[in-house]
Amino acid sequence: MFITDLRSDTVTKPTPEMLQAMFAAQVGDDVYEEDPTINALEAKAAAMFGMEAGLFCPSGTMTNQIAIKVHTGPLTEVICDVTAHIYQYEGGGIASNSYASVALVNGLRGKMTPEQIEGNIRPDNLHHPITKLVALENTCNKGGGSYYTIDEIAAISKLCKRENLALHLDGARVFNALVASSEDAKNYGLYFDSISVCLSKGLGAPVGSVLLGSKDFIKKSRRVRKVFGGGMRQAGYLAAACIYALDNHIDRLAEDQRKAKQMEEVLLQTDYVESVLPVETNIVIFKLNSKYTDNSFLEALAKHNIRASGFGPGMIRFVTHLDITDEMQEHTLKVLKSL
Amino acid sequence: MFITDLRSDTVTKPTPEMLQAMFAAQVGDDVYEEDPTINALEAKAAAMFGMEAGLFCPSGTMTNQIAIKVHTGPLTEVICDVTAHIYQYEGGGIASNSYASVALVNGLRGKMTPEQIEGNIRPDNLHHPITKLVALENTCNKGGGSYYTIDEIAAISKLCKRENLALHLDGARVFNALVASSEDAKNYGLYFDSISVCLSKGLGAPVGSVLLGSKDFIKKSRRVRKVFGGGMRQAGYLAAACIYALDNHIDRLAEDQRKAKQMEEVLLQTDYVESVLPVETNIVIFKLNSKYTDNSFLEALAKHNIRASGFGPGMIRFVTHLDITDEMQEHTLKVLKSL
Amino acid sequence: MFITDLRSDTVTKPTPEMLQAMFAAQVGDDVYEEDPTINALEAKAAAMFGMEAGLFCPSGTMTNQIAIKVHTGPLTEVICDVTAHIYQYEGGGIASNSYASVALVNGLRGKMTPEQIEGNIRPDNLHHPITKLVALENTCNKGGGSYYTIDEIAAISKLCKRENLALHLDGARVFNALVASSEDAKNYGLYFDSISVCLSKGLGAPVGSVLLGSKDFIKKSRRVRKVFGGGMRQAGYLAAACIYALDNHIDRLAEDQRKAKQMEEVLLQTDYVESVLPVETNIVIFKLNSKYTDNSFLEALAKHNIRASGFGPGMIRFVTHLDITDEMQEHTLKVLKSL
Amino acid sequence: MFITDLRSDTVTKPTPEMLQAMFAAQVGDDVYEEDPTINALEAKAAAMFGMEAGLFCPSGTMTNQIAIKVHTGPLTEVICDVTAHIYQYEGGGIASNSYASVALVNGLRGKMTPEQIEGNIRPDNLHHPITKLVALENTCNKGGGSYYTIDEIAAISKLCKRENLALHLDGARVFNALVASSEDAKNYGLYFDSISVCLSKGLGAPVGSVLLGSKDFIKKSRRVRKVFGGGMRQAGYLAAACIYALDNHIDRLAEDQRKAKQMEEVLLQTDYVESVLPVETNIVIFKLNSKYTDNSFLEALAKHNIRASGFGPGMIRFVTHLDITDEMQEHTLKVLKSL
Repeated sequence: MFITDLRSDTVTKPTPEMLQAMFAAQVGDDVYEEDPTINALEAKAAAMFGMEAGLFCPSGTMTNQIAIKVHTGPLTEVICDVTAHIYQYEGGGIASNSYASVALVNGLRGKMTPEQIEGNIRPDNLHHPITKLVALENTCNKGGGSYYTIDEIAAISKLCKRENLALHLDGARVFNALVASSEDAKNYGLYFDSISVCLSKGLGAPVGSVLLGSKDFIKKSRRVRKVFGGGMRQAGYLAAACIYALDNHIDRLAEDQRKAKQMEEVLLQTDYVESVLPVETNIVIFKLNSKYTDNSFLEALAKHNIRASGFGPGMIRFVTHLDITDEMQEHTLKVLKSL
Repeated sequence: MFITDLRSDTVTKPTPEMLQAMFAAQVGDDVYEEDPTINALEAKAAAMFGMEAGLFCPSGTMTNQIAIKVHTGPLTEVICDVTAHIYQYEGGGIASNSYASVALVNGLRGKMTPEQIEGNIRPDNLHHPITKLVALENTCNKGGGSYYTIDEIAAISKLCKRENLALHLDGARVFNALVASSEDAKNYGLYFDSISVCLSKGLGAPVGSVLLGSKDFIKKSRRVRKVFGGGMRQAGYLAAACIYALDNHIDRLAEDQRKAKQMEEVLLQTDYVESVLPVETNIVIFKLNSKYTDNSFLEALAKHNIRASGFGPGMIRFVTHLDITDEMQEHTLKVLKSL
Repeated sequence: MFITDLRSDTVTKPTPEMLQAMFAAQVGDDVYEEDPTINALEAKAAAMFGMEAGLFCPSGTMTNQIAIKVHTGPLTEVICDVTAHIYQYEGGGIASNSYASVALVNGLRGKMTPEQIEGNIRPDNLHHPITKLVALENTCNKGGGSYYTIDEIAAISKLCKRENLALHLDGARVFNALVASSEDAKNYGLYFDSISVCLSKGLGAPVGSVLLGSKDFIKKSRRVRKVFGGGMRQAGYLAAACIYALDNHIDRLAEDQRKAKQMEEVLLQTDYVESVLPVETNIVIFKLNSKYTDNSFLEALAKHNIRASGFGPGMIRFVTHLDITDEMQEHTLKVLKSL
Repeated sequence: MFITDLRSDTVTKPTPEMLQAMFAAQVGDDVYEEDPTINALEAKAAAMFGMEAGLFCPSGTMTNQIAIKVHTGPLTEVICDVTAHIYQYEGGGIASNSYASVALVNGLRGKMTPEQIEGNIRPDNLHHPITKLVALENTCNKGGGSYYTIDEIAAISKLCKRENLALHLDGARVFNALVASSEDAKNYGLYFDSISVCLSKGLGAPVGSVLLGSKDFIKKSRRVRKVFGGGMRQAGYLAAACIYALDNHIDRLAEDQRKAKQMEEVLLQTDYVESVLPVETNIVIFKLNSKYTDNSFLEALAKHNIRASGFGPGMIRFVTHLDITDEMQEHTLKVLKSL
């Protein structure tokens, strides 16, 4: 009997084709910048997003933390939504890795407006840290997979340029945003100073994220990667999977999003759900009413071999992905109707 | 012609009697813990608040930052109100001095409830920092001088003890809270793990704050003070002023509070004020309507030799204190009515 | 024509057998601790070294930096040899990642005596940081591959236990030390509080190091790994290569050491070498006389398709490894004689 | 009976004239930059040393730590002598306050040569931190009061300018160096990017140091001072003592140096001293032979009401200063001869 694992799109395993690509990879020592597959991935990702250069890293947390460290520093501040992964799920790294303060915006499902950002820019006064960086997350995980359109991004970018602030994108699920909005990645390069692109979530690569930015930014980032211990040697095997994912797994994210939408529809008709965050991509976050606690609901799902994530008191998150087959989807919908 | 300086209660200058006490002080090298006046002040302040030991420091920012550094550290988190001085006005020091993250509560005029605090304690999960410290400010500056009663403090303390969190008090204006609530400082020792007591605000000493805590806490704090460069040599002259202030300037805070209340009453009757934060102690924060901007209002006051602080767009703060004479008060009320 | 790459033993590429092991690996999401191959590697390495638990990381720099961060912290100090990799080659991470000071010992070819360590323990005085950690490197890279015997380690460990200091091993090339001294890895567990074991140097795995310690230490380390961004998802492919290396590539290090010894013998007979650090394992560091600078010597080697590392003015380093064939060795010896 | 306190020149107490100057001071709120006496001191000290601007701080540790923090940062490195106060006696603050690494030079009695400094500049390689700052101490405390001449300083400055490194002076006892070498403070402004001038050591002010540098540097330093908690309010009383000291206590340092020289002469003729560091200013550091340990020697002195500092095993330090009267000096010489 199969297990339907909806905890996260990080749990995917390589397809046979991806695995084949991995083991055909040419490798070298990437600390010496001699791994041809990593070099190819970095160049490919940079070109896709209209950026100058890239840096392969073990995780999206590392690409985010490096970017924050390069853009900020002691006595400075980052503006982000209060739900942002960089603030909520990276272990307090903004403070411990970059010694930087945070200004937290109460955005709408993870999304900040230019006005909200502007209201959080510090005046020039030695009592305050110096605002240096604005960080967006697209799609917004804790916002239920909501996304910024390119126009919204452009407006924020305009403010940042005017105020001399760097603009970083946590693109953990950026391809979900691009597919949902039918937008071209290349335009992102016009607006962001750095982008973290994760390949091991919806795209299905086993490991890896690429940090994108200007050549100078990437040079500084490489130094930070070294100090964090993120410099790997013959990691081209991993990079090959990422290249395969970029070539083959982007369009199919629409399928994940369709499945998520189906789940939302079913959930809204049950008697145990109080509300569902509007499903825009591949994440379904919903609030249970008094019939279940988050723990009792997870247990009920587990009896049907379905795994999901508790997301705070009474809150549940499903994430659809490459390894959720149609059979699993049908099973899940049936179970959701029956609970 | 006199200048009425309502910018802050930090601007007070020593009275002739305080200056005489300073001049007569016995001093020694405090880095060797041999300054008798500093030792006396530390003991006196500790006894007043029911704590074991004290440490004299150049400022309330330093006593706060030391306390945070001793209680927290990298990969941990502090819970405080979003308006807290430690977060807003200490230059981002929580991150740069202590490498710690912050969880920011949207309290009522600077005051957090136990429920709000509890909702911000992190679950034990390596994605999050570890919650270590809750910090209160009493009175709350940005809350308009609002204060916690001892019962409110007791409830928060109970939660902190249960959850194994340290509880720190930023007592920049703690005597204003004590006078307003007619409460005894000694009870604070039952609830707080550390208290920063400022002597250079309403109490009128020229320089200095005392950090209070257990002997072990103060031993660790002394080390942090050294590393920040806060260890002074023959600073007993300053400590003598603080002792004088504790002996002579507490009860008279009622007078400052009476003056603030009068200002509130006048402001509420003008045509240029949209709202005034309820005045509970010696701070008056009000919002201007469209008749003035914060800058044009400050300029209007300046023409009458009155100085005040802008406190964000359209916001003005007055602080009453020892150096505001009855004559200045009358003048101010008259000017406020006339603008 | 082949290239003989003596720059570092990090440049090795997987053998076909190792690649096959990788390809066959079972994987899972290691952030959820569900990758069976990583779990197996961690358990296997811990057992080998007589430690309780292990943590797989992207590099030896990360395992070292995590260990330092868990053992130390702000206002504390690490004692290490001035040549130590953690101080010289990890980008200043002791300060930037752990906020800790260093006491640098001028040991003999990278090796410190217990007396030297003892002389660097700080007295209990707030002017000094608090000594918390002693870090050894075995073998010592900058010491020319010199190694500590188990008896030397035992003596240092005894001092550390008496003085309540943690003892960490940077085991970048620990298997070279074990093979050269015919000692059993298991005894290391008696003496060290943490060990970084690198699998991507002499052992030939493409990527990865394992950090070993007590269960509690590893729990804390996992949190630090998360914050650095070292948590990888389906990294079992890399771990499989490490397991293969542990099973198959340890004994053959004797061969690398034999080759290094041969190089030393040849170098000592040339007219361009001033001195060679005594070769004890797989590293050959030598000083050129005035006939060559380090750069002109590297160029001379390059003409014969031999790559090596400059190691400071007039200094050259060779490292032998798995990918240096007998043919390459013969070629190298011939070239060295001819220059 | 008097006590002769040779532990440090920090123990001096204000003379009656200095005290009078203090209590005649005009003060204001220095956080608003409105204390006229502090402003005057900052301007006066800056002018003396040929620098643009100054910043009054509670201690020399703070002026040093602020300068280091402004000049360096994470992933960078400071070059200093291994005996430097900033490394040895400021609690590990280079790492904990500035997140910076140190390169430690084994100079001659605390003094580094340009060659030694140059040999410690890191090559541009991401394995290393980036060298940013060279810090001198003049006089050198642990070097026994040795001093750099202006020519030596000029040579180091030339190297620093060429290599784009900042040059900081820890001038804890800079006036002792200037008096001993008959050099003009003004020339220092040509060579240093920042100078910490301590007024509470030989000059006899109770509290305070001034940090000097360019206007831009001081602006940044003011921000760091705020974050450390070094911003004081009406501290003009302390600044007045510093101004008095600058006006009246510099030339008399020659007297302290004469006394130190006399002590050296006596010590060299005793049977309990192994060696004395050549006395150049007001510090006498000597090594005991087996007749005494440092502790037993301090006890022997204490019986004669003489206090001194242990300075490591078998090492003793005397510091002469303003409060050592001729009577005390005679008494001390007699006791030293008798032990």
